[in-house]
Amino acid sequence: MTPTPTLFAFSERSRQLQADVARFVAERIVPAEAAFAAHAADPATRWSIPPQLEALKAEARALGLWNLFLPDPERGGHPRHPASPDTGAATHGAGLSNLDYAPIAEITGRSLYAPEVFNCSAPDTGNMEVLMHFATPEQQAPWLPRLLAGEIRSAFAMTEPDVASSDATNIALPIVRDGDHYVINGRKWWTTGAADPRCAILIVMGVTEPEGPPHERQSMVLVPMDTPGVRIVRPLTVFGYDDAPHGHVELSFENVRVPLGNRLGAAGSGFAIAQARLGPGRIHHCMRLIGLAQRALEAMVARARQREAFGRPLGGHGMAQEAIALSRCEIEQARLLTLQAAAALDAHGNKGARDLVGMIKIVAPSMACRVIDRAIQIHGAAGLSQDHFLAQAYAGARSLRLADGPDEVHIASLARSMLRAH
Amino acid sequence: MTPTPTLFAFSERSRQLQADVARFVAERIVPAEAAFAAHAADPATRWSIPPQLEALKAEARALGLWNLFLPDPERGGHPRHPASPDTGAATHGAGLSNLDYAPIAEITGRSLYAPEVFNCSAPDTGNMEVLMHFATPEQQAPWLPRLLAGEIRSAFAMTEPDVASSDATNIALPIVRDGDHYVINGRKWWTTGAADPRCAILIVMGVTEPEGPPHERQSMVLVPMDTPGVRIVRPLTVFGYDDAPHGHVELSFENVRVPLGNRLGAAGSGFAIAQARLGPGRIHHCMRLIGLAQRALEAMVARARQREAFGRPLGGHGMAQEAIALSRCEIEQARLLTLQAAAALDAHGNKGARDLVGMIKIVAPSMACRVIDRAIQIHGAAGLSQDHFLAQAYAGARSLRLADGPDEVHIASLARSMLRAH
Amino acid sequence: MTPTPTLFAFSERSRQLQADVARFVAERIVPAEAAFAAHAADPATRWSIPPQLEALKAEARALGLWNLFLPDPERGGHPRHPASPDTGAATHGAGLSNLDYAPIAEITGRSLYAPEVFNCSAPDTGNMEVLMHFATPEQQAPWLPRLLAGEIRSAFAMTEPDVASSDATNIALPIVRDGDHYVINGRKWWTTGAADPRCAILIVMGVTEPEGPPHERQSMVLVPMDTPGVRIVRPLTVFGYDDAPHGHVELSFENVRVPLGNRLGAAGSGFAIAQARLGPGRIHHCMRLIGLAQRALEAMVARARQREAFGRPLGGHGMAQEAIALSRCEIEQARLLTLQAAAALDAHGNKGARDLVGMIKIVAPSMACRVIDRAIQIHGAAGLSQDHFLAQAYAGARSLRLADGPDEVHIASLARSMLRAH
Amino acid sequence: MTPTPTLFAFSERSRQLQADVARFVAERIVPAEAAFAAHAADPATRWSIPPQLEALKAEARALGLWNLFLPDPERGGHPRHPASPDTGAATHGAGLSNLDYAPIAEITGRSLYAPEVFNCSAPDTGNMEVLMHFATPEQQAPWLPRLLAGEIRSAFAMTEPDVASSDATNIALPIVRDGDHYVINGRKWWTTGAADPRCAILIVMGVTEPEGPPHERQSMVLVPMDTPGVRIVRPLTVFGYDDAPHGHVELSFENVRVPLGNRLGAAGSGFAIAQARLGPGRIHHCMRLIGLAQRALEAMVARARQREAFGRPLGGHGMAQEAIALSRCEIEQARLLTLQAAAALDAHGNKGARDLVGMIKIVAPSMACRVIDRAIQIHGAAGLSQDHFLAQAYAGARSLRLADGPDEVHIASLARSMLRAH
Repeated sequence: MTPTPTLFAFSERSRQLQADVARFVAERIVPAEAAFAAHAADPATRWSIPPQLEALKAEARALGLWNLFLPDPERGGHPRHPASPDTGAATHGAGLSNLDYAPIAEITGRSLYAPEVFNCSAPDTGNMEVLMHFATPEQQAPWLPRLLAGEIRSAFAMTEPDVASSDATNIALPIVRDGDHYVINGRKWWTTGAADPRCAILIVMGVTEPEGPPHERQSMVLVPMDTPGVRIVRPLTVFGYDDAPHGHVELSFENVRVPLGNRLGAAGSGFAIAQARLGPGRIHHCMRLIGLAQRALEAMVARARQREAFGRPLGGHGMAQEAIALSRCEIEQARLLTLQAAAALDAHGNKGARDLVGMIKIVAPSMACRVIDRAIQIHGAAGLSQDHFLAQAYAGARSLRLADGPDEVHIASLARSMLRAH
Repeated sequence: MTPTPTLFAFSERSRQLQADVARFVAERIVPAEAAFAAHAADPATRWSIPPQLEALKAEARALGLWNLFLPDPERGGHPRHPASPDTGAATHGAGLSNLDYAPIAEITGRSLYAPEVFNCSAPDTGNMEVLMHFATPEQQAPWLPRLLAGEIRSAFAMTEPDVASSDATNIALPIVRDGDHYVINGRKWWTTGAADPRCAILIVMGVTEPEGPPHERQSMVLVPMDTPGVRIVRPLTVFGYDDAPHGHVELSFENVRVPLGNRLGAAGSGFAIAQARLGPGRIHHCMRLIGLAQRALEAMVARARQREAFGRPLGGHGMAQEAIALSRCEIEQARLLTLQAAAALDAHGNKGARDLVGMIKIVAPSMACRVIDRAIQIHGAAGLSQDHFLAQAYAGARSLRLADGPDEVHIASLARSMLRAH
Repeated sequence: MTPTPTLFAFSERSRQLQADVARFVAERIVPAEAAFAAHAADPATRWSIPPQLEALKAEARALGLWNLFLPDPERGGHPRHPASPDTGAATHGAGLSNLDYAPIAEITGRSLYAPEVFNCSAPDTGNMEVLMHFATPEQQAPWLPRLLAGEIRSAFAMTEPDVASSDATNIALPIVRDGDHYVINGRKWWTTGAADPRCAILIVMGVTEPEGPPHERQSMVLVPMDTPGVRIVRPLTVFGYDDAPHGHVELSFENVRVPLGNRLGAAGSGFAIAQARLGPGRIHHCMRLIGLAQRALEAMVARARQREAFGRPLGGHGMAQEAIALSRCEIEQARLLTLQAAAALDAHGNKGARDLVGMIKIVAPSMACRVIDRAIQIHGAAGLSQDHFLAQAYAGARSLRLADGPDEVHIASLARSMLRAH
Repeated sequence: MTPTPTLFAFSERSRQLQADVARFVAERIVPAEAAFAAHAADPATRWSIPPQLEALKAEARALGLWNLFLPDPERGGHPRHPASPDTGAATHGAGLSNLDYAPIAEITGRSLYAPEVFNCSAPDTGNMEVLMHFATPEQQAPWLPRLLAGEIRSAFAMTEPDVASSDATNIALPIVRDGDHYVINGRKWWTTGAADPRCAILIVMGVTEPEGPPHERQSMVLVPMDTPGVRIVRPLTVFGYDDAPHGHVELSFENVRVPLGNRLGAAGSGFAIAQARLGPGRIHHCMRLIGLAQRALEAMVARARQREAFGRPLGGHGMAQEAIALSRCEIEQARLLTLQAAAALDAHGNKGARDLVGMIKIVAPSMACRVIDRAIQIHGAAGLSQDHFLAQAYAGARSLRLADGPDEVHIASLARSMLRAH
């Protein structure tokens, strides 16, 4: 059962990359999953990077399957953001439109490990885009080339334990000017990837202009991970997974000092940069979830063919058929909607695609949860365990009903947009 | 709030027709709905045709908005079915592919009355296609030109009260050869349109080869409505609607005699013709449901803006926002899936598009039921009444979870196809 | 398959009545349903009362199966409402607690016609209770004895077309004092039963104290149906059903004059009386819905045993099994919850039972819709037609997701009560 | 917000114990949860027993809150199973009926740690019952008194990796007679509690009579945990949780020899004993899930009161109200249904209560999953982490949609029972 080929018109280059990436995932990455999982299960090694991962990265890079998310072969060719200086930093983007990249993102979503192998994993992709569009050449120099080369990793410290971060204007971490430095004190959490031993740089969002209007109070500043006062408090778990070695951590900042020159863009532009960061990232997240759901469906079908109960293969039972058929219907629809959103983003930009991007954020995580849950059910208790990718996949999909805004916020926002537009 | 323009590549001709049909529906048909409803509510007139309907048909035909469902400007340009003689009957198809026609079908679905105004209503569309592909010129002559001209209507008598007709091999009406005639005795029901005073011809499916293999027992025969022994037993209701003046009726056949030459195609080909009839018809049904759901959503939004409760417009309440946003998400997805199925039908034919056509049959009627149900809820009790189109729309959408095969049959069939293909 | 006997402790009298009513419904009423339906389908008779109905009423009354909803054998023995004068009107209540009456209400819910046969049908039951508790002997004399005897019927005119009546403080019909009369001008709708030829008396709610605080603006007044200026504008339909001969009608009031003495209770007490009317009525409605759902389940099981498709009885197919099993689970739970609410109403009164009564109003109508919808699906298209009770039952159940407050209002109200109580 | 007091008639003794257990859980166990969690999170201690747990057990036992699940104060007073010898073993049951124990089980379900504190945790409860009813005094002596005293723990090895264990006749582990011993070779998994350092005894189900009829092939044998050849292969995870220190493990048996006298009951009686073990156990599981869901609801309400977003507490938003109100409705219904099943078990035994016990197994785990999932959503990402009990609670509830038979098996079984009974 292959996914129905969509009739959206992908470029020849996209189609070739889809095939190459699919082959690499199937032949190189999926077979290595067990080794990665064993590495992460071993208390002695789990917070280190498995050497095989770096080897696969080198291999992918050599094949040109690298930084495919970058829209511009030169530099990142989104129509340049008004606030974005032309830094001229040389990069190696694939030059794909959002629509052309979307099916590639789907394929990388099939394996937990694939996005990093292609240097296309969150939060680095969003961070690289922010650095390209909003950083000065001086700000880019120490980090961007090494991120593009996959030598270091980065994290994005936005969510805070004490406020409802779904409303980004609530972000409250004080970033206080002290002479020619900013001083940061406080806590962030759910900072994904900060536990990675290769994580070298944080983008931290906090309040620099406490007296400004609500949407112009925050700024983003670059905080090297080794700055004194930055401390990983603990890894957080999602269900029982801590997603070592990258992790989702609680960070504390105690008198952390960075030069004023580490601020990205204008003072008070943090909210605007956060918004600009979101559009393509949501497409990526949703397409990866669709890839994950597609793999769960394939596993469900395989299991339903092999496993027998009450004298028939599971696939001969009506309720299993229902699980399989409805999952297919839901995946196909979510895929088409997300491709539509990608095409709208290409054609109309963040603002013109806002409703559609909101819709996929509402639809895809819930869909993936339902499909994976059905796949678990068809696998029996084994589906809950470490013997299949399903339970961990569920945890990831479930977290995306909250990450980057809970479903309810996107639902209300879409409805309000429709009520206004009427 | 206009529907999101899909990024499927419609032809210029399709886009122009979409605009023309949309204007005609909005400006000519929707304003006439109240008059049509009053005509159908009046016991004195309800089983007759409102004169305004014929006037609108003439108007639409004069504008070239006619028989748009016909794929071939010459004759119906599907690759000719192997069993289909080349009759050369002149018709006036728009020459649209399934993909190009689909959004037009959506627009006609917005009003109960629109499909007929454009001579694009079921079951006549399917019947005309059967006559084009499977009838001899002699069989076509008395009926097909007049159907294409909208002068007469037709019905398709397949479902039977005593068997589960979802399994078409169960169809049991005996059509017995007696010299050079067939003699028919028995009952059919849910024969849509047979009560229309203009209904002149029935296509009747029954068993002519009782000893044949299961899929080769039935044939289809042409039975003029005025043949002695054909009798309308009663109109059936769907919820409380009898859908006068067309109706869904129970028919009895008592010693109904037609010449052997009235049989379409080879003896025993009834099942095969029924299958061939289905693909495009399902696309049409589903797109019309999407148009209906879209209109319900627009009504929901309008109501949520205007009506106040507990000190706010309904649209300010979270559960109403949820109803609105989820409906939008579900409509967009079902629309894209149905367009995808139409494109697959164009590219790969009935067989290659089978899974996708099955999926839309599973998805669209349920989606329309949910959306319309939410619209009713937001309208309060008024939404259940004759003051809005919603309750009748619900009845129609609900019946399509059963017509042409209940959901469960399509779900099982899709799952089995996937389990085989694996 | 009999309903699971609940282990709530019903009184011996209740258990005996349950058995008697069940037998009467099964042996006398259900067999007459076809005749009643035919009477209501015939344009010549449909707005008249079928003679057989009055005969069954007489029969039931002779057996003592009459006014069973009345809690007090003397007069209606709810702890007397503070505002309720002691009128001493002789009645014939069964003296059952809410818990004891609930299973009887369930049984009467199995047939559309049963509640009236036992003189236990809405809105008369609520109206009789209002007359008992809030009317003076002079106000009771012309109406209450005849209502208790089943000689006349009554209606309750509250909902208005122009306001969201779910918020009862919105009720706006002006009832203006003019000397020693009230003069009423305006419109009501969804006045159930007002089209019944035996309907003699309306209880009309409207604004008598426009300057009062929001909850003390309305009063209820008695308006004899034959008062000049009272006019039935039209019957309203619910999914195509007008529920003749009782109907749900739009009423217009043009200079309708009634004596000041027709006002029930104090000026401005309308809202309070409306609230007091609700508790037991909601139990009755919900239990009847449970009886309806139970009958739908029994029909579903019977159909699943008899009908064959794809080589097996429907009941051998997994999705049909799912429909059957889940329906049983949902019915049992809703029944227990409603009995719990009835017991709480007996033990703690309207206020103490408020959360539970809110819960059953949220749960039972939706549950009945789901169960009946599944039963329709298992019956195929026949389930949508007049050949089964299911489609009309669905319409009734669906209307109860709106009548007496839409689901959303009860959901919000329950949540707020919980948030306060915390 | 206290749970609605049910109106089922609990004995005075049950009501007193409910109050005592509730107080103990709230005042002694819940405050210790953080310490237990820290113990289980520390790699150095996680597979050992926290000393505080044994202290709490002693405390509970001293208060008489011990072995409350045991129905007979003398010995376990179920009507003795025909196959059950009268062993006269002294125990300390509370003498509660299933109905009286059910609300106590609910309260213990509020905390992961509570069931063990009261010596009422699975699988020991079921194992103790099996030992009481089916073991000889010689078989009981080394294990039963120490289990009743909470000195040792036990495990039940039934599920196997290679067969669909939902169909218990599939159980295939060979238990081969060799002289006066049985020799066991093979694998079991999901053996809960076997990793507990105090686990001393396994009840192992396997095939002793391979030629017997399907339901008489298996027997159960007692296998001391320290028998040579018994090996814990690995702990299994449920959504990342390994539930240390008890665990759910994979076991291997290599030439494990036990005397023939270790077989419980007759040869081939394994299936029958497994069935007998289930009824009360399902009540316990479901009531504990209800307690867990109730606690999640209380957490949801508390969070909705405290947390602000978009200018209001979460509880002021419609979709949060919906989550809260629907959860309450679902919990109340599931609780009543489970109490009803418990009452039926008391009144009619396993067979007479079979449908109701099937219903709660279908209803309660799904309900708990939905309620806990909503609570997670209202807690935001924190709800997924180790900072709240919710994510781990979800994992437990989700596993019960599979443990002891997947939902689908119970749904099909209930439907078949209804179709037969009709």
